[in-house]
Amino acid sequence: MKKSRDPLEPKADKATVRRHNLSLVLRAVHDEGEATRAAVAARVGLTRAAVSSLVEQLLAGGFLTESGKTFSGHAGRPGTALRMARTGPAGLGVEVTVDYVSVCVVDLAGTDRVRLTEHLDNRNVPPGEVLARAARIAARTLESAAEQDLRPAGVRLALPGLVSGGRVRQAPNLGWEGVPAEELFAGALRAARPGLPGLPTGSDNEANAAALAQLWFGEGEAGTGRARSFLYVSGEIGVGGAVVVDGELLRGAHGFAGEIGHVVADAAGPECRCGSWGCLEQYAGQAALLRGAGLDGDAGARGVAELERRAGAGDTRALAALERAGRMLGLVLSGAVNLLDPEAVVLGGVFRGLMPWLGRAADEELARRVVSGLWSAGGGRLRASSPSGDAARGAAALVVRDVIADPVQYAERSSAAEGDAART
Amino acid sequence: MKKSRDPLEPKADKATVRRHNLSLVLRAVHDEGEATRAAVAARVGLTRAAVSSLVEQLLAGGFLTESGKTFSGHAGRPGTALRMARTGPAGLGVEVTVDYVSVCVVDLAGTDRVRLTEHLDNRNVPPGEVLARAARIAARTLESAAEQDLRPAGVRLALPGLVSGGRVRQAPNLGWEGVPAEELFAGALRAARPGLPGLPTGSDNEANAAALAQLWFGEGEAGTGRARSFLYVSGEIGVGGAVVVDGELLRGAHGFAGEIGHVVADAAGPECRCGSWGCLEQYAGQAALLRGAGLDGDAGARGVAELERRAGAGDTRALAALERAGRMLGLVLSGAVNLLDPEAVVLGGVFRGLMPWLGRAADEELARRVVSGLWSAGGGRLRASSPSGDAARGAAALVVRDVIADPVQYAERSSAAEGDAART
Repeated sequence: MKKSRDPLEPKADKATVRRHNLSLVLRAVHDEGEATRAAVAARVGLTRAAVSSLVEQLLAGGFLTESGKTFSGHAGRPGTALRMARTGPAGLGVEVTVDYVSVCVVDLAGTDRVRLTEHLDNRNVPPGEVLARAARIAARTLESAAEQDLRPAGVRLALPGLVSGGRVRQAPNLGWEGVPAEELFAGALRAARPGLPGLPTGSDNEANAAALAQLWFGEGEAGTGRARSFLYVSGEIGVGGAVVVDGELLRGAHGFAGEIGHVVADAAGPECRCGSWGCLEQYAGQAALLRGAGLDGDAGARGVAELERRAGAGDTRALAALERAGRMLGLVLSGAVNLLDPEAVVLGGVFRGLMPWLGRAADEELARRVVSGLWSAGGGRLRASSPSGDAARGAAALVVRDVIADPVQYAERSSAAEGDAART
Repeated sequence: MKKSRDPLEPKADKATVRRHNLSLVLRAVHDEGEATRAAVAARVGLTRAAVSSLVEQLLAGGFLTESGKTFSGHAGRPGTALRMARTGPAGLGVEVTVDYVSVCVVDLAGTDRVRLTEHLDNRNVPPGEVLARAARIAARTLESAAEQDLRPAGVRLALPGLVSGGRVRQAPNLGWEGVPAEELFAGALRAARPGLPGLPTGSDNEANAAALAQLWFGEGEAGTGRARSFLYVSGEIGVGGAVVVDGELLRGAHGFAGEIGHVVADAAGPECRCGSWGCLEQYAGQAALLRGAGLDGDAGARGVAELERRAGAGDTRALAALERAGRMLGLVLSGAVNLLDPEAVVLGGVFRGLMPWLGRAADEELARRVVSGLWSAGGGRLRASSPSGDAARGAAALVVRDVIADPVQYAERSSAAEGDAART
């Protein structure tokens, strides 16, 4: 006999529904930090019995752990607290820039658990060699992760350029054009870990990854809360950007949104590496900042540290250079704010440390130019980024997000990988 | 005995589910234009029996009609075709600009059924008087609509300024500041229709309404299809803008996104009414275009017609003015494209008719300045708007959208209104 069903409920395959509900429960615990079964049931709108069955499966799969601790101060029978597992499923993020490679492993809660950063000069090094370096650093990071029983579900690269479909279309400051970055990295990682299974590899623009890390991990400044719609602008050799709207990254039709470094600040300005003239990067990029203060434009992180030192000591030339850069930054930001009306503008990269000197000029320019007095200088909408949210962590967290969205897929893949390993 | 239910299905109240499913079915017919019950069932994932029951209710409520026509050329039993009703539920849109008021009524299919436009001068007229004029025009439009048996569920105002929470924060070209537009209009409409029930009133920025009309009703240009992510820029006295991402309007944190007219084109440029300097409006707004060509900046629609005539006749001064404006427009658009990576940029308002002369300069400037050669001049990403999608129709369609999202609410409201009318 066919089971009767409510004709008003949409049809759905039972295994699909269970798979979806496993993700709902996992996500609920993730977002709450810790929660009882009853709290999860209330949040996701399933019965307590259904949640218990799903939780058992997630505990057995190593996605959740359970503490003996009980909640007090609540009505009803106390429950044990569920938390995201601190071992097992994890994400690997690899940030490659001109000056350094930074690799991190985050666990299911998004906590940064292993971090390996190497400062090196990736200028004028062939892309294959840069990515092979990055893969060797990643392999060492994975060894540390394995000692902590963390097993990344995949790896995500964060790269300073136009990234789409696994390739870098253009990364002018690295000198890359049309580089199949995912393929090169994955090959190099297999070579660096002979006998071990490869990892599914993804890639993203580094400002995008950093903006997501700000969204997920950046502490809100006192009184301002954490913005869900903001423009993220990162000062590096180039000036990167990303747009977050209602907690989602705006990617654009080709995946290339956020290129604020190439918004024109002065149409009659100097030629830019991108082929245009007078781009923001020519006024507020690292090289322009350093040269403006009388330093070597290629001095990198050391140069920026020296610029901060001089500005702190009241060096007039350094202060004037930072104010000029801040004005140009504010000018371009005012256009972006008029167009997007974000809650906040978050400044990262070298701008973070330079905020005390360029922040005020930028904020004033915003107040002068944002329509209808909607921007008040000193109102806290121009913010420094949080150091706990960087591109490597954002990239790693994107991998974890995929695990949470479909824990069954992770379980299937890892048992297949164990089978492969056993056969080797 | 309690009915047993699948513990994995989320709980949902039966009336709520039915209400939601009525909307799903109505939306399916709306999007398809015409459809059989079987086609609707396949689309929404409900059983044929469930769809039939929902369709009966929607036919009885006057939301759908059914033709005797049967489909041929398909396998299976032919079905009768369902369509959106051409009478009954409708939407009223009212566009107020400096130079005209345009009111339209659209039916459930979004078709423009009644249109009344009055060209008049709203400069230096108190806001209450402008809105009272608009209400009188709306009242006459409603009379025509009633003769066609169309009963608008509400009215939406489209206004050229920063609109939020029913108020116009600022509309510099009308000279409005802090005007409670919805309240003033609703009061004037009640006064213009004594004894008739009032209409729920909403309001929006006019570029937003026009952009939605482009999204919903603009024909795609040959070969380009209809973009779902685009920047809409409208040349009027001011330059308005709106950002559509994946078929949704980007509203911004305060509802003020899209103000591209006040993005800076030249930091050292002339002061703008908004308080900033060198805004795009100072170079590509209607007054700047006219003055650049040696015409009276306040000549309005007649002036623009004269400008088109002169450009068509090869007048050098007119052509030079349009090329200059096109370059400045392209300059600012390049920044917006670098930031948003839209599929297309759609030019409306006076820019539509002036496209043959300012379009090429703008397109070339975009090609020079959008990163990484992502913009090819002549590639069709810079488009003229479709005349069938204007702000009044977009505003009216927003009302219809609300009806489709919850037909039960419309039915409840209109029976309450009939009750009121009977008591009067």
